[in-house]
Amino acid sequence: MTILVACNHPKTSVRFDEGLRKLGNGLDVRVWPDTGKLSDIRYALVWKPEEGALTGLSNLEVVFSIGAGVDHVLGRSDIPDVPLVRFVDPNLTMRMSEYVCLHVLTHHRRMLDYAEHQTRGEWKEVWPQPGANEIRVGVMGLGVLGLDAVEKLKILGYQVAGWSRSQKQIDWVECFAGDNGLKDFLTRTDILVCLLPHTPGTDGMINSELISGLAKDGPLPGPVLINAGRGRVQVESDILNSLEADALWAASLDVFEEEPLSPKSPLWVHPRVIITPHNASISDDLAVCRYVSDQIARYEKGEPLENVVDLKRGY
Amino acid sequence: MTILVACNHPKTSVRFDEGLRKLGNGLDVRVWPDTGKLSDIRYALVWKPEEGALTGLSNLEVVFSIGAGVDHVLGRSDIPDVPLVRFVDPNLTMRMSEYVCLHVLTHHRRMLDYAEHQTRGEWKEVWPQPGANEIRVGVMGLGVLGLDAVEKLKILGYQVAGWSRSQKQIDWVECFAGDNGLKDFLTRTDILVCLLPHTPGTDGMINSELISGLAKDGPLPGPVLINAGRGRVQVESDILNSLEADALWAASLDVFEEEPLSPKSPLWVHPRVIITPHNASISDDLAVCRYVSDQIARYEKGEPLENVVDLKRGY
Repeated sequence: MTILVACNHPKTSVRFDEGLRKLGNGLDVRVWPDTGKLSDIRYALVWKPEEGALTGLSNLEVVFSIGAGVDHVLGRSDIPDVPLVRFVDPNLTMRMSEYVCLHVLTHHRRMLDYAEHQTRGEWKEVWPQPGANEIRVGVMGLGVLGLDAVEKLKILGYQVAGWSRSQKQIDWVECFAGDNGLKDFLTRTDILVCLLPHTPGTDGMINSELISGLAKDGPLPGPVLINAGRGRVQVESDILNSLEADALWAASLDVFEEEPLSPKSPLWVHPRVIITPHNASISDDLAVCRYVSDQIARYEKGEPLENVVDLKRGY
Repeated sequence: MTILVACNHPKTSVRFDEGLRKLGNGLDVRVWPDTGKLSDIRYALVWKPEEGALTGLSNLEVVFSIGAGVDHVLGRSDIPDVPLVRFVDPNLTMRMSEYVCLHVLTHHRRMLDYAEHQTRGEWKEVWPQPGANEIRVGVMGLGVLGLDAVEKLKILGYQVAGWSRSQKQIDWVECFAGDNGLKDFLTRTDILVCLLPHTPGTDGMINSELISGLAKDGPLPGPVLINAGRGRVQVESDILNSLEADALWAASLDVFEEEPLSPKSPLWVHPRVIITPHNASISDDLAVCRYVSDQIARYEKGEPLENVVDLKRGY
């Protein structure tokens, strides 16, 4: 069983090479571009692989993506037409929910205001002080990550609803779906959490029009946006315009149209924008290696692969 | 049924006077110092009452405290020796847990570092990036507030243990107790959350010695302190010294030895201290009024009062 590791940075590839070897699972690990005999390779583990890195692998059976998002390989004509498996793991889910709960709480509890007061040594309360049960959070994307975030936000006390492209039936959360359900979902949302994948259907979806549909009657000074999904789902110039026009009150952004975010972006200095460097939930190397190793073991026994990407949906 | 409202600020008293009247429960509400005939008064609702405000109330049967803490009346010789009832309500509990989860997440996820990077337009990850499951949170105080915080922190993924002065048996959380259990509790704690009441036994308890006992081998750069209990439980000069000596890495403080915190306090400008103006969980006026009204109705029917303060324990 031979696996090729192909990442955009050689240093990254080396980490996964080491991780897979540590597991001692009998895998023959090759690191691109040192592929050895191409026809040996049956599996590939990739993160933003170089153009052509997977070309000529006549016996390739499965491509594993490092990370939950697969937009780094999707739609590329140089990636062979074999099952593509994305990384799903409890740790990744837990960490994403940490991020979501942290940033919902940060804006709900007005920490940007209190931080500003602190710089002036000012003891001053911000009013009103709504409880979580008065704040309506809307989570876009109801996969494994979205549902875990919804559950934890509900336990903290928030009124939570979800939106997904295709209708979901989940008895413990109000679900909106598709273009038809979007307007009603936005109208009841004070804090919007975006965990959507980047697909042709979500490209640039978080724009001025969508933001202007958010609740105007909430207990916060205005709507809040948290994007920890993918940067290309948002239009950054629209986010800035919405902040200036008071259509949006504050934002936490972990992802950007271009990453790293340019030092010249006005988002960095906006007083009501919190920026994090795409680290809401980083795949733990060893967890990825264990996952891939387990999936290969299942596959070799004739069991089905888990979390195979639906190429039409794009996730 | 006559109730006297006696708060430190006349404006505060007026709010509760209005709240009680709105409920239309047949209570005759008097606002100190306009007490009317003293012998009419059977109940008192107080927040830091003026010295002597409850003197001469020969028919007083119950004193209700606005807020969960009763240190504002405890040990005062001018407060009549009748049952003292503290305010406990689900909203107060929810809001305290919001604060606790927010500040645990803020330090765990290194938001002070990321905020500093943002001021420089710097796209930089902070390493390591432990999951909640690698962080040991210790909650001091296992009353209604403490247990709710423990539960929510566990759901977020943290390793949580609790400490209380007297031993508690709770099967879903590791409980330490008393002076004997303190050392072991601190040794396993990366983030210390203090929700203790102020009593002679907790006065100045969060000092250099206690802080120096916190875990030194955790995944964060050092121990973190979050105090949302009472300010007199902490020694602020010791907190500052511990920060300087790297015995403490960061802190979130909602309460202080003297409130409001003096504009001259060096805590305001410390880069690893987050200050909030004692608003972790503020009693909602109407909720307090409903609570008092319900308790009086129960009492009048001969049912026992709830949440009567144990004067020996002080909470």
